[in-house]
Amino acid sequence: MQSKILLSEDQLPKQWYNIIPDMPGTMSPVIHPGTLQPVSPDDLLPLFPMGLIEQEVSQERWIDIPEEVREIYKLWRPAPMFRAHQLEKALGTPAKIYYKYEGVSPAGSHKPNTAVPQAYYNKIAGTKRIASETGAGQWGSSIALACQHFGLECTVYMVKVSYGQKPYRKSMMQLWGADVFPSPSDKTNAGRSILEKDPDNQGSLGIAISEAVEDAATHEDTRYALGSVLNHVCMHQTIIGLEAKEQLKIAGDYPDVIIGCHGGGSNFAGIAFPFISDKANGKDIRLLAMEPASCPTLTKGVYAFDYGDTAKMAPISKMYTLGHDFMPPGIHAGGLRYHGASPLVSQLVHEGVVEARAVPQTACFEAAVLFARTESIIPAPESSHAIRGAIDEALQAKEEGKEKTILFNLSGHGHVDMAAYDAYFANQLEDYEYPEAAIQESLSHLPKVG
Amino acid sequence: MQSKILLSEDQLPKQWYNIIPDMPGTMSPVIHPGTLQPVSPDDLLPLFPMGLIEQEVSQERWIDIPEEVREIYKLWRPAPMFRAHQLEKALGTPAKIYYKYEGVSPAGSHKPNTAVPQAYYNKIAGTKRIASETGAGQWGSSIALACQHFGLECTVYMVKVSYGQKPYRKSMMQLWGADVFPSPSDKTNAGRSILEKDPDNQGSLGIAISEAVEDAATHEDTRYALGSVLNHVCMHQTIIGLEAKEQLKIAGDYPDVIIGCHGGGSNFAGIAFPFISDKANGKDIRLLAMEPASCPTLTKGVYAFDYGDTAKMAPISKMYTLGHDFMPPGIHAGGLRYHGASPLVSQLVHEGVVEARAVPQTACFEAAVLFARTESIIPAPESSHAIRGAIDEALQAKEEGKEKTILFNLSGHGHVDMAAYDAYFANQLEDYEYPEAAIQESLSHLPKVG
Repeated sequence: MQSKILLSEDQLPKQWYNIIPDMPGTMSPVIHPGTLQPVSPDDLLPLFPMGLIEQEVSQERWIDIPEEVREIYKLWRPAPMFRAHQLEKALGTPAKIYYKYEGVSPAGSHKPNTAVPQAYYNKIAGTKRIASETGAGQWGSSIALACQHFGLECTVYMVKVSYGQKPYRKSMMQLWGADVFPSPSDKTNAGRSILEKDPDNQGSLGIAISEAVEDAATHEDTRYALGSVLNHVCMHQTIIGLEAKEQLKIAGDYPDVIIGCHGGGSNFAGIAFPFISDKANGKDIRLLAMEPASCPTLTKGVYAFDYGDTAKMAPISKMYTLGHDFMPPGIHAGGLRYHGASPLVSQLVHEGVVEARAVPQTACFEAAVLFARTESIIPAPESSHAIRGAIDEALQAKEEGKEKTILFNLSGHGHVDMAAYDAYFANQLEDYEYPEAAIQESLSHLPKVG
Repeated sequence: MQSKILLSEDQLPKQWYNIIPDMPGTMSPVIHPGTLQPVSPDDLLPLFPMGLIEQEVSQERWIDIPEEVREIYKLWRPAPMFRAHQLEKALGTPAKIYYKYEGVSPAGSHKPNTAVPQAYYNKIAGTKRIASETGAGQWGSSIALACQHFGLECTVYMVKVSYGQKPYRKSMMQLWGADVFPSPSDKTNAGRSILEKDPDNQGSLGIAISEAVEDAATHEDTRYALGSVLNHVCMHQTIIGLEAKEQLKIAGDYPDVIIGCHGGGSNFAGIAFPFISDKANGKDIRLLAMEPASCPTLTKGVYAFDYGDTAKMAPISKMYTLGHDFMPPGIHAGGLRYHGASPLVSQLVHEGVVEARAVPQTACFEAAVLFARTESIIPAPESSHAIRGAIDEALQAKEEGKEKTILFNLSGHGHVDMAAYDAYFANQLEDYEYPEAAIQESLSHLPKVG
């Protein structure tokens, strides 16, 4: 019984897939937060090196992966794919479930797939330091790791509630040489102005982004890096889906439904985008983004122009949003607590190409426990949303007596998140109500654009 | 620059290597703790299934790995080998450093290599429950995982100081369905008698073994499992070295020195034993076991008969020992805090085939930090002892201007041990003096055998 499907290093993709030329509908411009006019590539130069700005707007379908990046990818890539035989058996489903496992990276998640090229393009552009933010710490640890590889300094603003709750992630960043500050911090105007009004503010990803963007914009030698949302980030992550397609070929299979958890959109994009052109070419597949019910950007947000951060310093994009000052409840899947979403994923949802579904966290942990007890791997709380989606699809197939092939992205392991499992077993996890009033309030602050 | 060396699943070894027929000198008998006479296989039946007892005493050089075990091994095996190019560069050494990485298992260490076959042989013998102990939790989580695979119940006695310090490991065991008790516990006579004298006793591996052995011996449907020390455990771990030999062939290389950290001996045996027959056949190689200076079994203990546990319920073996009631200081490499050692490794040290070296923990963390900052992977504190050994060998090669090929076993990742790194960075790690008086005291309690 073959359960692991491997590629050789020779089969590591040589190019990323850029979905922009294949997008349905027309892309909306990105708007400058100061002028409220469309940004030019030059406007972005204080934040990003030109190599990444070019990728952000490229119309090329395939972008070469630099050899220096592929060499580092090979530390853990190609990542394995598994057929979840034991899970299928436990569910008694006729469905076949495959998962791509990204927890094999040194940081334990898919985030280094984009951290490494981002650090690389900064290095060759002469950047000395990268400023970034992190929620749960998966991204922060990955950018720290990548900066270490290329000899760049790294400053991470970590959402304060996570800084306290996830000390191991903070330690990983420090071990890889990064400076880590709890956000809101007193290091930036954005942080100080929030602390003045609310000294106990526990932070949000939107606030932390404001701090990192300000840090980069106000230091000549420093650039900013974002772990999700942006076009080039989604593109770097397509290495997941490109490998998955090859692995499914080896298995002699093709998915009916492809599932990823959704926070900012990058791991979902990574597994899903390479299959979307097949869908455009007539393949009957579904693409399913799973988000937390407590931060239901795609399912309860609006498709509108909004700031990427709380302090309105980051560019304005057309995306699904809950409002840039929405404060999501403190769930354990800290990586999925973002008010916005990737503009690319948003447009695909808006055009009906991608489905979205919101699930409460206890249902996700229930899925994660079943997964760990059948497939052995302990999932990150974020990834458990994708597992929930896969299990629900498999149970539906059982009910309908239908065969179905399911592919999902297991974006990271949960070894650093065991406190969340403890809370689940102790019945201490709350399933937050959909915070409708808070969302209505924050949605009333959208910028007047478009 | 090729840094990762992979085997295909077809190349997963089909047999373990049993070193017993190739041992120098004659093996000493194992002694019954009650009668002080040599044990018969039947004496061991209350503790182990016959399949494992047969392996414990087998004279066959090669033992088939059951297909059911190989199927589970394939979830993470063959494990990768890496050439440590970045570490070599940082050291400026002419030495080539290779490492075998065992942190890819679902539990994050090499321990599942023996947990899985132990659970398997118990399952086919009709065992319903396995009782075991754990120090740092690497073994406890692995036996919990393996029991989950085969539908066995699992009870783990966890050294109390680790139960408090390493909550994530405890949570992993519970997630994989095990019952975990801090040891000494009130569940056994052994535990209760220690708590009566010393209610605040923080436990030791020797005490936890006593509890698990008593639990197994007093319950008909329950057997005992040990994560290191025993012959069959060392044999299961030889899959590490067998794979490493094939991987070095692919690299066109052969090691001058092979290094593993040493607690009970199983991960060292795993990487080293398959090379020892080459040494007997004239290959000029060195085998180096690295142990903590605070628990210097091989370097400061005596080679004598001693109990495997504190309460004198486990069999008596001839081994290097610090005395069965030696209480090692609470270092962060909790997996290396055992008073005794594998009888096989002990005999090899005694015969001069294997060298041993003791190192203080700060020197090991220093090595681990350099490793994480060059090779990306965060090492478990136990594994850092092997890294220290490899770096010292590489620096010596530099001093002597000699080429040298070094192979070491990176037995696990440190994602669950980040608190130890925090303590290191905060200069809070103590380098315990070699506790000579305590060792002399405990050595005065050796049983009168042989």
